[in-house]
Amino acid sequence: MHLIPESIDTPEILIDRDVLVRNIDRMAATVRTKGLDLRPHAKTHKVPEIAALQLSAGAVGLTVATVGEAEVFAEHGADDVFIAYPLWVGPQKAERLRRLLHADIRLAVGVDSPEAAEMMAQSMGADAGQMDVLLEIDSGHHRSGIAPEAAVAVAESAAAAGLHVAGIFTFPGHSYAPGMPIKAAEQEEAALAAASNLLTNAGFHVERLSGGSTPTATLTGPSLVTEVRPGVYVFGDAQQLELERCTPEDIALTVAATVVSRHEGTDGMPRRVILDAGSKILGSDRPAWATGFGRVMEHLDARITALSEHHATVVWPPDVTLPALGERLRVIPNHVCLAMNLVDEVTVTADGTIIDRWRVAARGRNK
Amino acid sequence: MHLIPESIDTPEILIDRDVLVRNIDRMAATVRTKGLDLRPHAKTHKVPEIAALQLSAGAVGLTVATVGEAEVFAEHGADDVFIAYPLWVGPQKAERLRRLLHADIRLAVGVDSPEAAEMMAQSMGADAGQMDVLLEIDSGHHRSGIAPEAAVAVAESAAAAGLHVAGIFTFPGHSYAPGMPIKAAEQEEAALAAASNLLTNAGFHVERLSGGSTPTATLTGPSLVTEVRPGVYVFGDAQQLELERCTPEDIALTVAATVVSRHEGTDGMPRRVILDAGSKILGSDRPAWATGFGRVMEHLDARITALSEHHATVVWPPDVTLPALGERLRVIPNHVCLAMNLVDEVTVTADGTIIDRWRVAARGRNK
Repeated sequence: MHLIPESIDTPEILIDRDVLVRNIDRMAATVRTKGLDLRPHAKTHKVPEIAALQLSAGAVGLTVATVGEAEVFAEHGADDVFIAYPLWVGPQKAERLRRLLHADIRLAVGVDSPEAAEMMAQSMGADAGQMDVLLEIDSGHHRSGIAPEAAVAVAESAAAAGLHVAGIFTFPGHSYAPGMPIKAAEQEEAALAAASNLLTNAGFHVERLSGGSTPTATLTGPSLVTEVRPGVYVFGDAQQLELERCTPEDIALTVAATVVSRHEGTDGMPRRVILDAGSKILGSDRPAWATGFGRVMEHLDARITALSEHHATVVWPPDVTLPALGERLRVIPNHVCLAMNLVDEVTVTADGTIIDRWRVAARGRNK
Repeated sequence: MHLIPESIDTPEILIDRDVLVRNIDRMAATVRTKGLDLRPHAKTHKVPEIAALQLSAGAVGLTVATVGEAEVFAEHGADDVFIAYPLWVGPQKAERLRRLLHADIRLAVGVDSPEAAEMMAQSMGADAGQMDVLLEIDSGHHRSGIAPEAAVAVAESAAAAGLHVAGIFTFPGHSYAPGMPIKAAEQEEAALAAASNLLTNAGFHVERLSGGSTPTATLTGPSLVTEVRPGVYVFGDAQQLELERCTPEDIALTVAATVVSRHEGTDGMPRRVILDAGSKILGSDRPAWATGFGRVMEHLDARITALSEHHATVVWPPDVTLPALGERLRVIPNHVCLAMNLVDEVTVTADGTIIDRWRVAARGRNK
């Protein structure tokens, strides 16, 4: 079956509606079985239609990375949003958060220092206590977040400044490597448990314990965690495929591309084709353990060895016929969150037929 | 002097107008001195105001990567555009190219195979001969393009199909590595000379020989080349800085960012701060030879060791005080062409004061 509709010009992001819905339903069921709340990360897709599917499948609310994303999803009906980021709230962000609160959006934000808590409280003024504040705990990713041992001091500063400390969260980003998901899930659980115990002993009521990423979300539990925040699971991508967190049948997002240049390798270089999808539609994330800059759905044994802005160099196995010039292939990006942030609209298909176009409404909302 | 205006929220792309104009004028003067035409690559900036500055400094026309970019710059007054890409022209692209030709835009496009030439001629119909076709020659980058020895066969197919073969072009992309610019410039010259000689001997009139990239453009000549197509020179970036093709004073584009998390390294990890600029505004290109994912203008000895979508992890030298939480810094992206493609607008400053906002009109025009 040819899955790139003929009327599509390339490069173009295609979303397979049936695979998307299956991914959304499966994660919702898995998380429900564990008795956890699902608060999917909407930075992955940035599309209100997909958020609506997640919410109607039982998500309790959305996670986002920026105030701008919160604004877009709130405009489209989301009423419970967690900005899972250690925000530094100056006057501009304070004004925007205030507007969301006054529109009756239930908001939570991240904090990982007394300074950020005090800045937030000062900028938000009388509205400071209306948001839930979740302390970011470092569970081994060593990006932002504090050690569990530092949680009480930050919580006390935040509370003293007038913020409502509702709980803790962590992002086990170190789960994105081969052999790491189970270990990272254990560290995530241990860090949240340690911080929660210390906070409880210090008199805080830890209502929300938020964890999870696509690699670890289905591993979590039985657990102290009250909610998980996976994002990428809606589409899958080449990273998840190579980490064995999904199969090719679970891939809902591909980039339709055309073979624009073809080289049989008589120049002493590898046999290769050049596709018209480059870093300006695929994104250029490439972890050291990845086989390349994405995968080709129709030829999973081909390797994307280089990416320019509008070229993907795809090296072909020696015994397989090179695709013809003009042939159209579907590329699985390494990291879907970046690919979605590069286009204004996506084409939605079912059985290879176009059924809709969705606007990537929160694209570029970086602040 | 504090160069991030207070009213700016972060992350935000800042363009220093004076540095930009100096870069544009310097490249124009250098290329003029060599007697070459300057046809700057507008995919770097995607901003009509910057294209206008380049054209009024003497550029003969623009280079772009996609039909969509050609459309945007044509709408804004460019009348001579080279799409330096081996286009596979199906019915949709043919219709759009035809519309540009009928609006009296002088168009050139790239071709690197008989099949693409025939497809283009067939799709364009009666208008096929109205464009200049430039054969793409591989001068050592081994991406798209043909060996000089293959030029005559492709040119003959293109001419037989009814296309006007006006010349040849190459992109010495392998110049983007330490120690490579001079060697790549020599290979570029040799490949164009070889292809040009073969074509001339076969009876073709090679009017246009197009070369150049920011690393090699100022190295070219005395030369057979008739035009150069540098792009990045308008802004500079961390790659150009580390290749010693520009100095920090030549950097016209930075991303204003805020320290949102700060770690003295008591967790056994490096002393680091986290900035609120990640891969969704900096882009995640990172060549193996680069020191990291960009540089911090105010602290060139700091190292951006990791990039998430909204976090840059910046490791600080042991003997230097970590910046404070809330402090604002300017990040130099590794690859400006990707950064510009991630925002809808940029802030233009002079001496740290906002003087304009420019729309990135061709952002996302991938096809």
